[in-house]
Amino acid sequence: MLEYRTPGIPDELFERIEEVPITKEEVRVIQISKARLAPGHIVYDIGCGSGSISVEAALQIASGGKVYSVDFDPKAIELTKKNIAKFCISNVNIILGDAKEKIGELPEADAIFIGGTGGDTKEIVALCEGKLKTGGRIVIGTILVETLFAVLDIIGKLKFKEVDVTQITVSKSRKTPTGTMMLARNPVTIVSATKI
Amino acid sequence: MLEYRTPGIPDELFERIEEVPITKEEVRVIQISKARLAPGHIVYDIGCGSGSISVEAALQIASGGKVYSVDFDPKAIELTKKNIAKFCISNVNIILGDAKEKIGELPEADAIFIGGTGGDTKEIVALCEGKLKTGGRIVIGTILVETLFAVLDIIGKLKFKEVDVTQITVSKSRKTPTGTMMLARNPVTIVSATKI
Repeated sequence: MLEYRTPGIPDELFERIEEVPITKEEVRVIQISKARLAPGHIVYDIGCGSGSISVEAALQIASGGKVYSVDFDPKAIELTKKNIAKFCISNVNIILGDAKEKIGELPEADAIFIGGTGGDTKEIVALCEGKLKTGGRIVIGTILVETLFAVLDIIGKLKFKEVDVTQITVSKSRKTPTGTMMLARNPVTIVSATKI
Repeated sequence: MLEYRTPGIPDELFERIEEVPITKEEVRVIQISKARLAPGHIVYDIGCGSGSISVEAALQIASGGKVYSVDFDPKAIELTKKNIAKFCISNVNIILGDAKEKIGELPEADAIFIGGTGGDTKEIVALCEGKLKTGGRIVIGTILVETLFAVLDIIGKLKFKEVDVTQITVSKSRKTPTGTMMLARNPVTIVSATKI
């Protein structure tokens, strides 16, 4: 088991498959930080993918809290199950299906992560706003320009304050025979806000 | 007091003065994550500046842990004291002086942050290596090319494994009359490693 309590589990400790993307360590810790989690919180992870956000969130909200992880891709659900098991986590509910149908069945949330929307960004953000408690946090990770535009558009029309838009570009080192070079990853833009 | 336990206190909640730089929120949470903190840990914050790393680390290692915050600038020490008081933290020892002289007096560490070295990078990294427990973590934030070069050079010669070099570039949004633009901040490079 992990010997530390800060978020930031190294990527290589997660089970991974090629077809399901993982939110990489540095972006993941910023997303977790923007959610301002505390023990006992109810959290959704919409488009949970590899489950890395679900794992980190579940550790931060234990004990007493619960994560609801939703994805429409059976491969993502299988992978999330594997990662939850790998880190011996018991406070995650894993749900296969369309977030637009499943969100209505969930209890009110303190924090909601949206990692993927399958193109239904505005509808899913609006559904999530309806389930967030006052003071609850929404954290949306986007890699597509279209998703970022849709998020900014809808979030300005809903009951949110403290809207923060942070773009992160990470480069990692690689040793070459003559020295250390930096390899760039793609930028990720994180939109976070507080429910009024 | 803070209602959440995840690192990532918004920058605007800290006391700040113009002469003392603050490690900004997104970079700070990555640095905290790289240190892999747990309750009970002994932590140094060398070149503590505004004290923002000291505050976040102290919250993660409570209860039972202790942060030793060192800076040679009396203005930084004053500011760190103010921020420690603001967040009602009691497990930080604030030390005014030259890190090269003060490190020898500190107990063995589980994690060491280096935020500034006043040009004595190699000497300070070597002194810190001598005080780190086996398995302990060093996390060095650099903005100067010269410091990054010195860190990579010395860290390869000391007893460290799992050396990670991560450059982060953050952009934040600004509303203009016609839309949302992204403003770039300067890149920060974080070197972290585990003591063998």
